[in-house]
Amino acid sequence: MGDVIKLENHLEQPETAAGDPPVERRRRSGGRSAERTRRPPAATKYLNLVNTTAKSAVLSEDALEAVHEASLTILEEIGMDIILPEARERMKAAGAEVTPGTDRVRFDRGLVMEMMASVPSSFTMHARNPLRNVEIGGNNLVFAQVASAPFVADREGGRRAGNQEDFRKLVKLAQSYDIIHTTGGYPVEPVDIHASVRHLDCLSDMVKLTDKVFHVYSLGRQRNLDGIEIARIGRGISMEEMEREPSLFTIINTSSPLRLDGPMLQGIIEMSSRNQVVVVTPFTLAGAMAPVTIAGALVQQNAEALAGIAFTQMVRKGAPVMYGGFTSNVDMKTGAPAFGTPEYMKAVIAGGQLARKYNIPYRTSNTNASNTLDAQAAYESAFSLWALTQGGGNFIMHSAGWSEGGLTASFEKFILDVDMLQMVAEYLTPLDVSADALGLDAVRDVGPGGHFFGTPHTLARYETAFYSPILSDWRNFETWTEAGRPTTYDHANRIFREKLDAYERPPLDPAIEDELDAFVARRKEEGGVPTDF
Amino acid sequence: MGDVIKLENHLEQPETAAGDPPVERRRRSGGRSAERTRRPPAATKYLNLVNTTAKSAVLSEDALEAVHEASLTILEEIGMDIILPEARERMKAAGAEVTPGTDRVRFDRGLVMEMMASVPSSFTMHARNPLRNVEIGGNNLVFAQVASAPFVADREGGRRAGNQEDFRKLVKLAQSYDIIHTTGGYPVEPVDIHASVRHLDCLSDMVKLTDKVFHVYSLGRQRNLDGIEIARIGRGISMEEMEREPSLFTIINTSSPLRLDGPMLQGIIEMSSRNQVVVVTPFTLAGAMAPVTIAGALVQQNAEALAGIAFTQMVRKGAPVMYGGFTSNVDMKTGAPAFGTPEYMKAVIAGGQLARKYNIPYRTSNTNASNTLDAQAAYESAFSLWALTQGGGNFIMHSAGWSEGGLTASFEKFILDVDMLQMVAEYLTPLDVSADALGLDAVRDVGPGGHFFGTPHTLARYETAFYSPILSDWRNFETWTEAGRPTTYDHANRIFREKLDAYERPPLDPAIEDELDAFVARRKEEGGVPTDF
Repeated sequence: MGDVIKLENHLEQPETAAGDPPVERRRRSGGRSAERTRRPPAATKYLNLVNTTAKSAVLSEDALEAVHEASLTILEEIGMDIILPEARERMKAAGAEVTPGTDRVRFDRGLVMEMMASVPSSFTMHARNPLRNVEIGGNNLVFAQVASAPFVADREGGRRAGNQEDFRKLVKLAQSYDIIHTTGGYPVEPVDIHASVRHLDCLSDMVKLTDKVFHVYSLGRQRNLDGIEIARIGRGISMEEMEREPSLFTIINTSSPLRLDGPMLQGIIEMSSRNQVVVVTPFTLAGAMAPVTIAGALVQQNAEALAGIAFTQMVRKGAPVMYGGFTSNVDMKTGAPAFGTPEYMKAVIAGGQLARKYNIPYRTSNTNASNTLDAQAAYESAFSLWALTQGGGNFIMHSAGWSEGGLTASFEKFILDVDMLQMVAEYLTPLDVSADALGLDAVRDVGPGGHFFGTPHTLARYETAFYSPILSDWRNFETWTEAGRPTTYDHANRIFREKLDAYERPPLDPAIEDELDAFVARRKEEGGVPTDF
Repeated sequence: MGDVIKLENHLEQPETAAGDPPVERRRRSGGRSAERTRRPPAATKYLNLVNTTAKSAVLSEDALEAVHEASLTILEEIGMDIILPEARERMKAAGAEVTPGTDRVRFDRGLVMEMMASVPSSFTMHARNPLRNVEIGGNNLVFAQVASAPFVADREGGRRAGNQEDFRKLVKLAQSYDIIHTTGGYPVEPVDIHASVRHLDCLSDMVKLTDKVFHVYSLGRQRNLDGIEIARIGRGISMEEMEREPSLFTIINTSSPLRLDGPMLQGIIEMSSRNQVVVVTPFTLAGAMAPVTIAGALVQQNAEALAGIAFTQMVRKGAPVMYGGFTSNVDMKTGAPAFGTPEYMKAVIAGGQLARKYNIPYRTSNTNASNTLDAQAAYESAFSLWALTQGGGNFIMHSAGWSEGGLTASFEKFILDVDMLQMVAEYLTPLDVSADALGLDAVRDVGPGGHFFGTPHTLARYETAFYSPILSDWRNFETWTEAGRPTTYDHANRIFREKLDAYERPPLDPAIEDELDAFVARRKEEGGVPTDF
C-alpha cells in the first residue's frame, strides 16, 4: 500500500530569525536558508513542484481576445457595485468613474490595463520555515488544503458541524504531507469558538501546528490586522520585513454578479497596503450568478477579477495578487452546483489562458460534488486535476479534503486527494531517458522469452522505480477478499487515523510561542473583533 | 441523473448492399450513406469524435530519437524470436536475417523503416451500419469496449467465470451507447461454449446484437478466416469489397520480451493479406517482461511493435495497422501489475509521440487495477483517460468495463466508464464563443447583485447548456440521505439493468441473418476449429 512521506527529517527551525542582511533575505535560497541548501533534507520530493507540461487551450487567440474585450466593456459600461466608501474614493482618485450617491463604479479599459501592468508575474510567499516558502507564478504549482467548509466528516463520526478539535486534526494532517504546501483557510469552521476571537485561536494554531504559509479571512479590518501580526510573530521578524516578504494570503470573493462587498474591499486595502497576498476569485456559477454559457460566465469572471486585481494596484503598485477562477455550472434541473464537470474543465483551462495573457499567477481549485468518498468523488476530482494541470494553475485551493461541493471537509477525502496530488506530481517528474534508463544492456541480458525480475538492472532500481500509492489496492482478488474486500474509503479511513497518531509538532522557538500566546491573550482581553459587520 | 442517449432513431439499415459503384464506396460519406448524410439522425453526438487538443510530450525530440534508435538497435543486434516457419520465410524474403536452425530473426534498421513507409496514416473500419464506420488515425478518437476478461462481475452475481449469457449482456450494452464505437473482442470469455466453435457463436452474436465493427482473435488461421467470412456476410458484400474496405480487426500481442508466437503471426498473415486491420500491441510491464525503467520498457515496446508492424507490410504493402502501446509498471513488492499510474500516464503519452513519429494510428487503453467500483477504479481510469487524450490515442481498447487489471468485465464499471468517456467527449467539444454565448446582453439585463436563473438568455439554453451525467449524484446531503445515500456503484448497478431492459436489436436483413446462421451451422458440422494449437 506504500509508505507515506516522512517529514520529521527536515523540520528544522531556522537558527536565526532577523539577523540576516536584507539583501540576502530577498534571495530565495539566501540568508538563513543557505545552510539548508547545503544539507538538503531527504524527503523534500514534493516541495517546489514545477509544471513544465505544455498548457492546453480551449480559447483560440481571437476568442481569448473577445472574452477580454467583453469583460472590459462590462467594467466600462455596466461597472461594479463597490460597497465601501473608502474603496470608491480610492478608485475615483485612481481615475474610475463613481456615480454620485450610488455604489456604482465604472472603469475605463485603459485604466484597468494600466493597473494590470504593475501586477508582479511571480513572487514568494514566506513561511516560518523557509523550506516551506512557496513560489507563486510561472510554472510553479502549489497545493493548499481544503478551506471554509461548515461541516466535517469521517466515517465513524458522520457529517457534523465543524469544531476546534476537528479543525486541529485537519490542520495537523495538512502539516503531515509535503504535497500540501500551504493551508488554505480554516479547513472547517470551528463554530464552538466565538466568532469574535475565532481568528485569534485558529491563526495561532496555524503557527503552532504547522510551519507552512497560511491564510487570513477578510471579514473586517481588525481580523486582517490581527492575522498579519500573528504571521509576523510566527516568523519572528519585524513589520518592515513582513512588507518586504509576503507571508500571508487572503481570498477575496466577489459577490457575483458584479459586486465587491465591504469586508472584501477592506481586506484588499489592509493586505495590499502591507504587500501581503490577495487572491481575487469571482465565484461565477454559470446559470446562477453568471450567464448560463461557459463563455459568458468567463467574461463575467474576468470582469470581476480584473476589477479586484486593479484595486489592489490602486492601493499599492506591485502588491502581490493572483487571478482566481471559480467558474462552474449548475445542475439546471435543481440549481445544485456541479464541479469537476467537462464545463468546469473548460473554464479552468480558459481561466489559465486569461491569467497568462495578463502575466499574473493563476489560482484554481480541486473540486467535486459527491456526498461521500465514491467513484464520483474520485472522477470529479481527477478531472479537476487534469484541467488545472493542463491549464497551468499556480495556486490550487481546496487541493485536499473538499467534499460535497465544499460544504464538508472530509478526512478520508483528504487522504484520497493527497494520493492523487502525489500522482500528479509524479506524472510531472521528468522521465529518465539516460542511456542507463533506456536499458539496452538489460534487454541484451534477458533476450527473447526471458523476464526482468531478477536482473541487475532491475535489482538496482526496483525499490524506487515507481510511485508507491498510499491507497491503491493492487492485491489479487483472492488476497483482497481474504482481507475483507476493503475499498479506497476503508484504506483512507485507516490512513488518516494512523497519520494523526504519528503527527509531531514542528519545532517552534519558545520565545516566539510566548509572544504569540501573549498577543492572543491581550487581544482576547480587548474583546477580539466586532461580529456585527 | 441525466438521460442516456437514445439510439433507436438512427439504427436504419442500409437500403442497398453492393450496388454502389466502387469509386463512390471508397468515399467516407458517399454511396449508401449519402441519404443518411442528408437526413442526419438526432442522437449521433458521440460518433466521429475528434481530439484537437494539443498533444502532450514526455520525451524531448532528442529523447524520442534515442528511444527510436535504441529500439532499432535491438531489432538489428538482438532480434526477435519468430515462432512460425512461414513467417520467417516471408521475413527472409523481405530482407531480414534469419539464423538457420533457430527462430531468431534480425531486422536491419533500413529494412524496418522501409516497411514503415508504406503503413497508412489513417483508414476507415467499416461496420455493417455505415453510421458506425470508424475513422482510425489523425485526430480521431474511437472507443472500444472491454475485451478478453476471464471473469465477469456485477454486485448481485458477484465475480464469476464468463458465460454466454453475460457475454451477450455486455455486447448488448456496447450496442446501447454511441460513445462505445466498437466492441473490442469478447468482453468476457464465454467458457460454457466449446472452444472449437466459440468464435462462431460469438462473432455471429456480434453481427446480430450490434451493428458496430468487431474483432476476431488470432488463435489459429481458421478462426481468422471464419471471422472474415462472418464480417463479410454481416455487411452483405463480396470478398473483393471486404478487401477494399477493412471491416474487422485483430489484436496481435507480442510475447514480451522479443517474441512473436505462431497464432499471432498467422493472424497477421491472414488479416493483412486481406487488407483487414491488425493492431500490434506489446504488453511490456516494466520490471516484469520489460526493463524496470519506463524508458527501457518503451524501447522494448517500440522494438516489438515495429517488428510486428513491419511484418504486416511484408505481407501486404499498405495493409491497415495500428501501433499499440501497453507499457505499465508492476508493484515491485508483489509483482502485481499496476495501471492508471503516473508511470502508465508517461508511457501512454510517450507511445503517442512514437506513433506520431511513424505517422501511424495509435492504440492504447483505459485501465485500472481495482477489484471493485471504488474511488481507485475511478481515479486510475480517469488518469488513463487524461493520458490517452493528451497523448493522442486514436483507438482505445478496454474503454468501458475493464476491472481488476483486465481479469474482470464489470457491468457497473462499464456504466461508470461510459459516463467518463462521455465527459471526455464533452470536454473535447469546442467552446461556443459566439457573441451570443459571450452573454454581454445577459449581464447587462441582470446587472450587479442579481441572478440569472430566469433570464431569457438562460431560459433559451438551460436544457442543453451542460452535460447531464449518467451517474453523478448532485442532490444535497439531506435529499441524498433520504434516498438511502446511494454511491456511484449503486447508481451504476441500477443503470446497467435499466439499459439492458431497454435494449433493442439493431435491424438486420433477414437474408443476411439466414446466410449467417447457415454458415455457422455448416462450420459447426465441420467441427469448428482444432483446439490443440
